[in-house]
Amino acid sequence: MSRDSKPDCGRRYREVRQRGFSDRASVEAATAWVDAHGSTAAAEEVRVTEAAGRVLATPVQAKLNLPPFDSANTDGYALRSGETVGAGDYNPLLFSIQSADQPLSSTASALVSAGMPLPEGADTVLPFEASRVNGSTLEVYRAVAEGAGVERKGRQIAAGTTLLDSGRIVRPQDAGLLACAGVERLMVVRRPRVRIVVAGPKPNLNVPIPDADGPMLSALITRDSGLIESVVSRVEERDAIRRAVAAPGADVILVAGRTGTGPDDEAPLALAETGELAIHGIALRPGGSAGMGLAAGVPVLLLPGEPFACFCTYELFAGRLIRRIGGRAPELPHAVREAEVRRKIVSVVGVVDLCPVRFVDGDVEPVGSVESGLASAVRADGFVLIPAPLEGFAPGARVSVYLYEKAPGS
Amino acid sequence: MSRDSKPDCGRRYREVRQRGFSDRASVEAATAWVDAHGSTAAAEEVRVTEAAGRVLATPVQAKLNLPPFDSANTDGYALRSGETVGAGDYNPLLFSIQSADQPLSSTASALVSAGMPLPEGADTVLPFEASRVNGSTLEVYRAVAEGAGVERKGRQIAAGTTLLDSGRIVRPQDAGLLACAGVERLMVVRRPRVRIVVAGPKPNLNVPIPDADGPMLSALITRDSGLIESVVSRVEERDAIRRAVAAPGADVILVAGRTGTGPDDEAPLALAETGELAIHGIALRPGGSAGMGLAAGVPVLLLPGEPFACFCTYELFAGRLIRRIGGRAPELPHAVREAEVRRKIVSVVGVVDLCPVRFVDGDVEPVGSVESGLASAVRADGFVLIPAPLEGFAPGARVSVYLYEKAPGS
Repeated sequence: MSRDSKPDCGRRYREVRQRGFSDRASVEAATAWVDAHGSTAAAEEVRVTEAAGRVLATPVQAKLNLPPFDSANTDGYALRSGETVGAGDYNPLLFSIQSADQPLSSTASALVSAGMPLPEGADTVLPFEASRVNGSTLEVYRAVAEGAGVERKGRQIAAGTTLLDSGRIVRPQDAGLLACAGVERLMVVRRPRVRIVVAGPKPNLNVPIPDADGPMLSALITRDSGLIESVVSRVEERDAIRRAVAAPGADVILVAGRTGTGPDDEAPLALAETGELAIHGIALRPGGSAGMGLAAGVPVLLLPGEPFACFCTYELFAGRLIRRIGGRAPELPHAVREAEVRRKIVSVVGVVDLCPVRFVDGDVEPVGSVESGLASAVRADGFVLIPAPLEGFAPGARVSVYLYEKAPGS
Repeated sequence: MSRDSKPDCGRRYREVRQRGFSDRASVEAATAWVDAHGSTAAAEEVRVTEAAGRVLATPVQAKLNLPPFDSANTDGYALRSGETVGAGDYNPLLFSIQSADQPLSSTASALVSAGMPLPEGADTVLPFEASRVNGSTLEVYRAVAEGAGVERKGRQIAAGTTLLDSGRIVRPQDAGLLACAGVERLMVVRRPRVRIVVAGPKPNLNVPIPDADGPMLSALITRDSGLIESVVSRVEERDAIRRAVAAPGADVILVAGRTGTGPDDEAPLALAETGELAIHGIALRPGGSAGMGLAAGVPVLLLPGEPFACFCTYELFAGRLIRRIGGRAPELPHAVREAEVRRKIVSVVGVVDLCPVRFVDGDVEPVGSVESGLASAVRADGFVLIPAPLEGFAPGARVSVYLYEKAPGS
């Protein structure tokens, strides 16, 4: 099949090569497609020691009481409160000292540490300050109330209580509490397996261009808690892209490169021939040649090869899909800060613009332009999205800034 | 050596077992000790594909120009701008079509894709809309200016330029830019190797208590980009703690448990005998029995075994130490949100209190109490620190809340 002939299959592929896009899907439509094709992955079992950062697939119940028995909540001497009645500074009462392993004898005491079980028969723990050891005898200088210094079995957590709901991202303290409560294994959402297919370089290129998209996408996928299923590097022809997209094993496939209007931009054709090309061309800048579709039921996102456009389309579409499949909040993961525009932010009417910005004295100004490429996203503190109907933001406008890092002092 | 005899060595150890603490170091003094003993680890070389999230140990310079050659920044036909003078809708000029691999012949054009090098002799790229292919001839309908559609070599980045400064945490887009600029390897701060020593359980305990501190500390260390060097589980006696603390291989050692006033709370003695116990007892609640010192020059933090106290002392001291050694900002890593107190937050004068809080209608209220233990930190949205001089915060007070998760809608 020659390059210039119409594709003979390519369901829904509309020719753009050497022509340009006649229309593009809105960012909203592309987002809706992502949302419709990102169902949460199945659950898998992990040990509590590996659970931090994972998303619970089912609620988790306590298996043990916490504390698991009536226990000392302070260091001191366990004894019977009733036997301390009448004790005072001028009237020490005398107790024998025995091991905490044995049931408590009459007028006996046993040394316990916080967290230890009370010996059978004890109902209180006397702090050290209220007693003195005299040889093998404990002198008690204060009456104590039943239950003082004691934490009742199950007070913090009763066995069977639901500790965490499904959807919770397990925090470090959660892992600790689950371990306390006797939970050894739990069900979490399987991490999405993401395949990266780097399409290109352009075949008649003499000068080697290092691949930027592979390392960048790997880092982004890792940030979004995806697993890199495989990286297929530098596939050049339509058939090779087709094979890379058709192979089983991934929950999401990202193809970077060969999405545009050049003669060899065959990634959309490869997808259309393998499965279904649902969208090609999105009203987004940069990233207008991005696309999406399905191959054997697996969502495939076509990201432009130009690194800044690849980055922006990952952020708006691929990250959202991966977070959805991973059971996480689909929204952009960046912290957001409201700020005032200091220097005009220019945009094009009819497309959503992603504009890297930096803070100057608490206000924001644009960094570089679409033409300065990925370097502008590197120099920026974050980015602003300019809705399609607007031609930009004038100085003084209030905007939401998606931050690349926690803002200084926030 | 019997339990009740005075320690025969234990430099700087002051007896607290079965007595209680007579005084405690301030949180400020403990923080200052951490800051004085957390020097940044040495650098190591990593590949750019493994660099995301790491801290740069040295500035990074571009090795290549970006773009590496004069290149098309749009898809279209490369040609000589001078030869298009006079072209118009009613006056198409005719160009031959040749390969972009060869130097451009007179009145010739070559199909190029965005990112491709221009053929020798070409100085502009004509977009498809301004031309039509007619057999082997290109009809040109518009004059184009020199440089239009062209991105000059080095425009985004000139070789030798410093791209990123030392101390930068490498972002996904940074990894992409570094790869573009021909950087294959770079120097980053070595991740701190952290040993976890779980001291306990109390020896005369019949009922097994699962270890909560190990899984929780592992998750916290991972959050702070430390490496778990080893987990020494459930060492029971002073000699075993000494051996676990003295073994080489770690940059930081965390001992969880056996720090308090019980008869077998020998972790401070073990540290004093191995090296130097600088602080034992900190005016913090929970966590008052924490300590810190050095073993063979390695900072050792003694964290209480009670899980909530272990958690809080990790947050205030251990995390700070690990972040410092890893070359990261030492401050608490949590996002901070200002909020109004809805229900009184109670504290003790003279100690810093860490109080878990939750949001209710945008205001905060305390969750549980010190007695409810780790479960309160699990149920909380974040925490508030109450300075030592205060006895709490009254309703209506403004407080800084350290968030466990990105706040909803922020």
